[in-house]
Parts: sequence; structure tokens; C-alpha cells
Amino acid sequence: MAASDERIGEDSAMRASGPAVVIHAGAGPLSDELLERESDVQAALLDALRRARAGLEAGAAAEEGALAAVVAMEDFPLFNAGRGSALCADGSVQMSASVMRGRDRGAGAVAGLRRAINPILGAREVMLSEQVLLVGEAADEWLAERGLEQLANGDFVTERQLVRLRVGAEADRGTVGAVCLDRGGNLAAATSTGGISGQPVGRVGDSPLLGAGTWADRRVAVSCTGDGEAFIRAGVARQIAALVECGVGLAEASERALGEVAARGGMGGLIALDACGRWCAPFTTAAMPRGAWRSGGEAQVHVRDVRALT
Amino acid sequence: MAASDERIGEDSAMRASGPAVVIHAGAGPLSDELLERESDVQAALLDALRRARAGLEAGAAAEEGALAAVVAMEDFPLFNAGRGSALCADGSVQMSASVMRGRDRGAGAVAGLRRAINPILGAREVMLSEQVLLVGEAADEWLAERGLEQLANGDFVTERQLVRLRVGAEADRGTVGAVCLDRGGNLAAATSTGGISGQPVGRVGDSPLLGAGTWADRRVAVSCTGDGEAFIRAGVARQIAALVECGVGLAEASERALGEVAARGGMGGLIALDACGRWCAPFTTAAMPRGAWRSGGEAQVHVRDVRALT
Repeated sequence: MAASDERIGEDSAMRASGPAVVIHAGAGPLSDELLERESDVQAALLDALRRARAGLEAGAAAEEGALAAVVAMEDFPLFNAGRGSALCADGSVQMSASVMRGRDRGAGAVAGLRRAINPILGAREVMLSEQVLLVGEAADEWLAERGLEQLANGDFVTERQLVRLRVGAEADRGTVGAVCLDRGGNLAAATSTGGISGQPVGRVGDSPLLGAGTWADRRVAVSCTGDGEAFIRAGVARQIAALVECGVGLAEASERALGEVAARGGMGGLIALDACGRWCAPFTTAAMPRGAWRSGGEAQVHVRDVRALT
Repeated sequence: MAASDERIGEDSAMRASGPAVVIHAGAGPLSDELLERESDVQAALLDALRRARAGLEAGAAAEEGALAAVVAMEDFPLFNAGRGSALCADGSVQMSASVMRGRDRGAGAVAGLRRAINPILGAREVMLSEQVLLVGEAADEWLAERGLEQLANGDFVTERQLVRLRVGAEADRGTVGAVCLDRGGNLAAATSTGGISGQPVGRVGDSPLLGAGTWADRRVAVSCTGDGEAFIRAGVARQIAALVECGVGLAEASERALGEVAARGGMGGLIALDACGRWCAPFTTAAMPRGAWRSGGEAQVHVRDVRALT
């Protein structure tokens, strides 16, 4: 396994950072489509960063920053989340999402949603309840009772995804995610996905599973993307947090976790951010659209190269 | 938080153990019912140990031992798994289970099943597929196609659980779980639950979530029971494994993880077994029916006291 050479900026990063946000829009192959639409993807990433930044600069909590970035990416139909989600084997859409707040480990997740315009806002609604994870049709009904905006399942289906399902396109890993650090030094993580093109109805990957695809505590926030089953079997996000708890550096912990994914035959990437504002964004695929912004700096986005976010 | 004084037998345990199995049937209050039915519960635990032991002594793999023990406990109607499961708010039954094999991290899980006689065998079926987690009605259909034995949902409803739902009984934590070490030194873990009495339909706890309620790798196998949401937010099973990876002892790692559950306002317990045959079974509730057997020793079970399994 050769992870990309993205490394955490251990030296350059500020020790006591202002707000920061790091986002990803899925690790996957360097497709012709991604090359053709690169400027659109960059614009979508910049928009997501801008929305999170606006909130964080105004004093919003880390989870609100992460939610704002993920909502923006869910709304962009080229990403595999919300409208534009990959289609199940039967041509329907099933969406999953999770959010976690590091300060008190508040967490909410939804899996197998069929109607939520923004699944990540469904995850937030669950975070506000006594539950942590709600699944399936009952979750859609629970969210409808609480006024979450919904559409018919067919409204989430895009021509692009119909074609991908028809031709048996390579796994669509356009999962989206964000990790944020707020002014108060609190962290949060959020992840949202439409799953894999052609997946069986009812299949759930790592994105809605706290500790697999998403995690935040007082030390670190993580959002993952890639071969979901391998990420679950590796327990990626929780492993990174526990290794950091044991004194392992953020970049080394992230590389070790991606190494465990590779040992399970999986590829993918992740973004990780710590309470000092240091981050890393390693991936083992050919591309991972991603971006970052830190207080006092400029927003930066990369799509297809392996240049590190600095 | 004062965890029970169950401690791993660091000194007494064999370093190179033969097969071993540890089981639990849920951490919870010391109810009148538990006191009245104590001998039945002990007999059920001994039966589960006996079935796992028979397989392991005949050379079965660790996951087959864990599955045999969990099937036996699912079939015992006083435990909250399979028939006898807690009822959702609408009076229906939803069952979840997971199994993980440490050798290669093979894993399978199901959540929100309504028809499987033995949900843990549904989890095994998923482990044999490309998926790791299947949820809801689609999971029941997927398992029916593969010949898993099923019943109508109403057939899982017991008079005992109807009464509990009616009177708003204290959370039923009779989740069941097993961890095994086989002759080859491989570990496995399995957990099965009916959830919490009165839970919203669609609610999923930690039991089917690899890294939260269940985990196995080459070093350690863990099965948890207790307040599911707090166990998810603490990322219990994966944290224990990562701490052990970092050199922390099994008992200390388990206590730290239960401490994180307590910090989230949760109670519960867990069983953990390492590749040398050392185990621990700490809990923060008044009772946790549990048992253990190790090659060359006698099977032992405890229900209500805090005596350590040795």
C-alpha cells in the first residue's frame, strides 16, 4: 500500500489555531468525467468551504460548520450524496449520513433514507434526540414528523447515475465529508453518501457508522471515504482517535488506519483534523477532491493531484 | 464510575491457551425476575457454554464457537434476543446482530430484522457475502432468499415482553454475546439483541455495529452490552482493541472504555478475550449474567454477584 504523500503539516501548522475546516468529496478513480468537470468540482468545493467558513468566523459551533459544508456538497449533483446519489440495484436511491460533535460526543446518524433532501440534516435531527442511529423507512417517517424537507425517491435519481447503473460503472466513491474546528477549540465531523452504484437495497457502508466512517472527540475529528466494507472491518475513524490518544501523530495514525483498509483489500481516503488545527488528507486512490481553509489563510482545493493541503 | 472488581487474570491465565469461550447475557438491573429465575438463567448460560465448547474442542473455528453460543442464548426466551426480544413502541420486534472473525476481520451484521429466528445466523450469512451490514426489510428479504429460517414478526412476541412494554419496564439490557478463542489461536466475537423496550421502530443500538458493540482482530475479541447509544458514542470495542495495540493491558483498556461510556451517562458491561486466553468481564450495572470456559478447566457461570470469572 502506498498512501499518497499528503502529510500533516506538523511544523507549519499553528499550535493554537483559529477556526479551520477540511472537506472531501470522495476518494476514487481519476475518471474522464472528473477531468472534464474539474472546474465545476473545484467551484463546488470552494462553495462548501465558504459556507463553513462564514459560520465558523461568525462563532458557529464546529458541528454547524461541518453540517453547512456537507449540505452544500449534498446539493451538488455530481457528488454521490443527496440528489445525485448512486442508485441501488433496483434503481432506487438510499442515503446515509452521520455527524459527531467532539466536545461531548453528541452524535446522530441515519441509514437507508429514501426521502431526505439533505440526509445530513436528518443525522442532526437524530443527534438532538435520545437516539444515535435510525434506519430505513421508519427513519424517513420519524424525520417527516419533525419537518425535515423530503422528496419522492424518484426525484433523487439523476440521468448520470442511471447511466452509471446501466453500464455497471466502477464504484462511485463520491461520498462527501467535512471536519471542523471552531473558535472555542471544539471539533466535529460529518459524512454523507449515496452508497455504491448497484448495491443491494438495505446495504449500509461506513459513512453512517460512528467509529468507522465518522468520528469526533476532544482530540481529533475524522471523515472517511472509500470501500465502505473495508473501512468498517478496519474500524478506521475510531482507531485513528485511539492511536492519537496513545500519543501517535495524526498523520502516522491515519496512514496506519489506511494500511489496515488496504490489508482488507480496500482503497479510499480520509480527512483528519486535530484540536491544534493540524490536518491531513491521505488517500490511496488516484483522486480525492478535497479542500481546506484555516483562519488567516486562503481556501485551497485540489481534485486530481496529490499536492498536500498546507 | 466504579466498575465491578472483575479483573483479568493476568497472572493465572495460561499464556498459550487452548480453546476458550466467554459469554454474557446482558448487563442490567438486579431484577426480582432475575433473582426468581436465577437457576434457569444459569442453566441457559451453561448450555450456551457447552455448545461452544463442543465445537471448539472438535476443532471448530472461533466464529463457529461464538455463533453456537449466541444461537443458544437467542433461543432462550428470557434473554433479549431472537424470540423474547424487547418490543418496539408499536409492539413489534426488531432484532440486530453482528459477528466478526479476528483472523481476517471477516464481519457480518444485520439491523432491524423482523423475521429471522436466529439473527446471528443472518449476520453470518452477510459475513459470507461482499457486504458487511444489511438493514431493515430488505435484509429480511435478502436472508429469505438464502434460506434463513424465519417466522412472522408476531411469533417473536412473548407475554413477558408485552407486560414490560405495557408497564414501561426499565430498559431491558438482556443482549447476548460471546467471544471465543479456537485451537489455532484465532479469535471471534458475536452479539445479538432485541434492543430496548419501547424503542422507536428503526432505532439501532451498538450490538450490530462493528467497533461499537462487537470487535475481533488478531489481538482481542470484544462483545458489549448496555446503553447502546453511549456505547456507540464511546466507540467501545474498537477503542479497547486500539489501546491493546498500543500496549495497554486488556483489563485496563476495558475499564477505560467503560469509563468513557460512564462519561456519556451510560451503564453496561462487556466481555473481552485475548489471543493468550486471558479474559475480563467488567460491568457497571448491578448484574450481568455471564460465563466462561477454558480448555482444561470447568465451565463457570455467574448471574448477580461480582465474583470474577477466573
